[in-house]
Amino acid sequence: MDLDLIRRLSQPHTSKVVLCVLDGLGGLPGSRGRTELEEADTKNLDRLAEAGSLGRTYPVGPGIAPGSGPGHMALFGYDPLVFDIGRGALEGTGIGFKLGPNDIAARGNLCTLGPDGLITDRRAGRLATERTAEVCARLREIKLPGVETFVEPVQDQRFLLVLRGEGLSDQLVETDPQHEGMAPIIATATAPEGERTAALVQQWVKAAEAMLKDDVPANGLLLRGWSPRPEIPPFPELWKLRAAAITVYPMYRGVAELCGMTPIPGAHTYAEEIALLKEHWDEYDFFFLHYKYADSAGEDGDFRRKQDAISAFDELLPQIVDLKPNVLIVTGDHSTPATMASHSWHTVPLLIWGDNVRADDMHQFSETLSRNGELGTLLAKDMMPVAMAHAGRLARYGA
Amino acid sequence: MDLDLIRRLSQPHTSKVVLCVLDGLGGLPGSRGRTELEEADTKNLDRLAEAGSLGRTYPVGPGIAPGSGPGHMALFGYDPLVFDIGRGALEGTGIGFKLGPNDIAARGNLCTLGPDGLITDRRAGRLATERTAEVCARLREIKLPGVETFVEPVQDQRFLLVLRGEGLSDQLVETDPQHEGMAPIIATATAPEGERTAALVQQWVKAAEAMLKDDVPANGLLLRGWSPRPEIPPFPELWKLRAAAITVYPMYRGVAELCGMTPIPGAHTYAEEIALLKEHWDEYDFFFLHYKYADSAGEDGDFRRKQDAISAFDELLPQIVDLKPNVLIVTGDHSTPATMASHSWHTVPLLIWGDNVRADDMHQFSETLSRNGELGTLLAKDMMPVAMAHAGRLARYGA
Repeated sequence: MDLDLIRRLSQPHTSKVVLCVLDGLGGLPGSRGRTELEEADTKNLDRLAEAGSLGRTYPVGPGIAPGSGPGHMALFGYDPLVFDIGRGALEGTGIGFKLGPNDIAARGNLCTLGPDGLITDRRAGRLATERTAEVCARLREIKLPGVETFVEPVQDQRFLLVLRGEGLSDQLVETDPQHEGMAPIIATATAPEGERTAALVQQWVKAAEAMLKDDVPANGLLLRGWSPRPEIPPFPELWKLRAAAITVYPMYRGVAELCGMTPIPGAHTYAEEIALLKEHWDEYDFFFLHYKYADSAGEDGDFRRKQDAISAFDELLPQIVDLKPNVLIVTGDHSTPATMASHSWHTVPLLIWGDNVRADDMHQFSETLSRNGELGTLLAKDMMPVAMAHAGRLARYGA
Repeated sequence: MDLDLIRRLSQPHTSKVVLCVLDGLGGLPGSRGRTELEEADTKNLDRLAEAGSLGRTYPVGPGIAPGSGPGHMALFGYDPLVFDIGRGALEGTGIGFKLGPNDIAARGNLCTLGPDGLITDRRAGRLATERTAEVCARLREIKLPGVETFVEPVQDQRFLLVLRGEGLSDQLVETDPQHEGMAPIIATATAPEGERTAALVQQWVKAAEAMLKDDVPANGLLLRGWSPRPEIPPFPELWKLRAAAITVYPMYRGVAELCGMTPIPGAHTYAEEIALLKEHWDEYDFFFLHYKYADSAGEDGDFRRKQDAISAFDELLPQIVDLKPNVLIVTGDHSTPATMASHSWHTVPLLIWGDNVRADDMHQFSETLSRNGELGTLLAKDMMPVAMAHAGRLARYGA
């Protein structure tokens, strides 16, 4: 739905809405012909499925496997093809770096270059985060004319590079050829307005390479995903509510924060996420709760671990239900089938439970049954209006 | 999906994809309450249905029955409402006439005019193709100032008229009133840029009518579907693959060729199509294989012959499966229910079998079961991204 229409129809209410995102929830059948979700012990989810409505979402559209950014943007109600958060900006959110209006960010990788200047390891042997932090501290010494630079370690060999200054642009190529055996690419402009930024980046890269040249395995660096601060209409204003984001991993909290939600940090486990949810229950109307472990098991190709991760989510779910949310949504940002060990385009099961649901006759939360559920197959960006309508938060359209 | 997004996300791969189009596949129940497809012997398709995913496509959109052009354009991933191949251009593809950038083509019909100049038979008694060829040879003698003309016989009373020259336009009315008992329409411009072309066409029609006036039943002609050469982003570039089209009928090969696929002519039967598929298997990544006989039987209103045509397709299907395509798609470009004896708007069953399918619990390829299949109900233009995703040919969107 159009954001202007949401802004126009949304109305304040006392209802509470909880969105539980099981990252990478959707799966493919394993050796026994059932998916990870279908094999998991989901007695609590199944009870909600029985009393609620099932459906499915396409994260972006038919055939499109999304990254975590677009997957979450869509669940928050934003068209991920319109609100495209660049990799640099996304990396910044993950470490709490707040991009300003004059910033251009890139995701950096420390890498290993051979004597011939070609990349031999794009990840510098997955350099430890602490060592990357030391390298970043040295790289901060490089000064550029007329702009500030920030170099922040992220995880393993990854870092964030931010240029801050008037008139910068993201119109330049990535220096990462994305393949080993090739040389890093010179950062040239892709449009006239990118020329000054490209020249500055070339200067910075040259200085950085000179500084690192004897530091095998981290004797080179690759930059990708040039991005300005994304301009996103704030979720709390669109929906006229107070919204909070509870996640273990900073990146997901960061995406929610880019959308104007209030991040509630401090959880290191799912149980701690639920504890934060309880603690802050009265302070917000909408809670985004992120559960990572289904995705990470799927990415590792570990069917059984993904199945168990879903079971573990289910086990504590009654604590969320006991808070008596008016509307509880359980879904995923995309599928991560263990058999593929990667994000996929397959639809994701969706469960909406609570006020005003038209309960269907589906008694299990599964890929198979969600096909025929009440909610049908939606684009993920259309899920939020449906959920908010259930919560009494969308007024009638027209007289 | 947007073609720019396809261009951005598509990636080279070693996978092989086969698209089998059973022309006019979808049907309506006959006297026994089952459709042509449901009555057919489809043991091989049913086996694929069991191991694969079913769904349905709307060729263009709800309620819209497409011609062969839009039906195929949609299956190739092009929005048929955007990439509208005019009837003139389509007629050209059918006889291998390659339109140039300065060409305007129309489909012509020889017709019978009464003594009062009104149309008494729009098809001139379905004049034999050979006689139409003789008429075309005479019409070629008509010369116009500043433009070349081409007049080519197609089939029965149909012919192709092409005007070639600088500054021509398709902004003129059709001369075919599409009803008998009316006079042919004067070719007037519908916009200022069509005026010169309209004047040329009027001049040509006048000369043609003078030439044919004593030749009952073919003493008149009707022109429709003025169209320039369509500009279609080439399929092989969009998808970064080598694509071939294997068809018995030239028109379908022609549409595929307009989309940049390489036509492989030479087949006069379905068995010969399969032989060509085997022969060229290593040379291409994507094969479009067209099976005409379901549609022609449907158009003739012959339920049993359509059923048998589908059974005959099924019988040789294992030879395609034996080639081990990574992804095999079986669908139709539209429905042609024998009970209607024409193209219809009804959804068309879709089967995708191969790598990464989320197998559903559907054990038969049928209109009835495809309703509840994993793939849901898609616009036909969205089918290709889904199939290509299964084949590993679409990269992730966003970080």
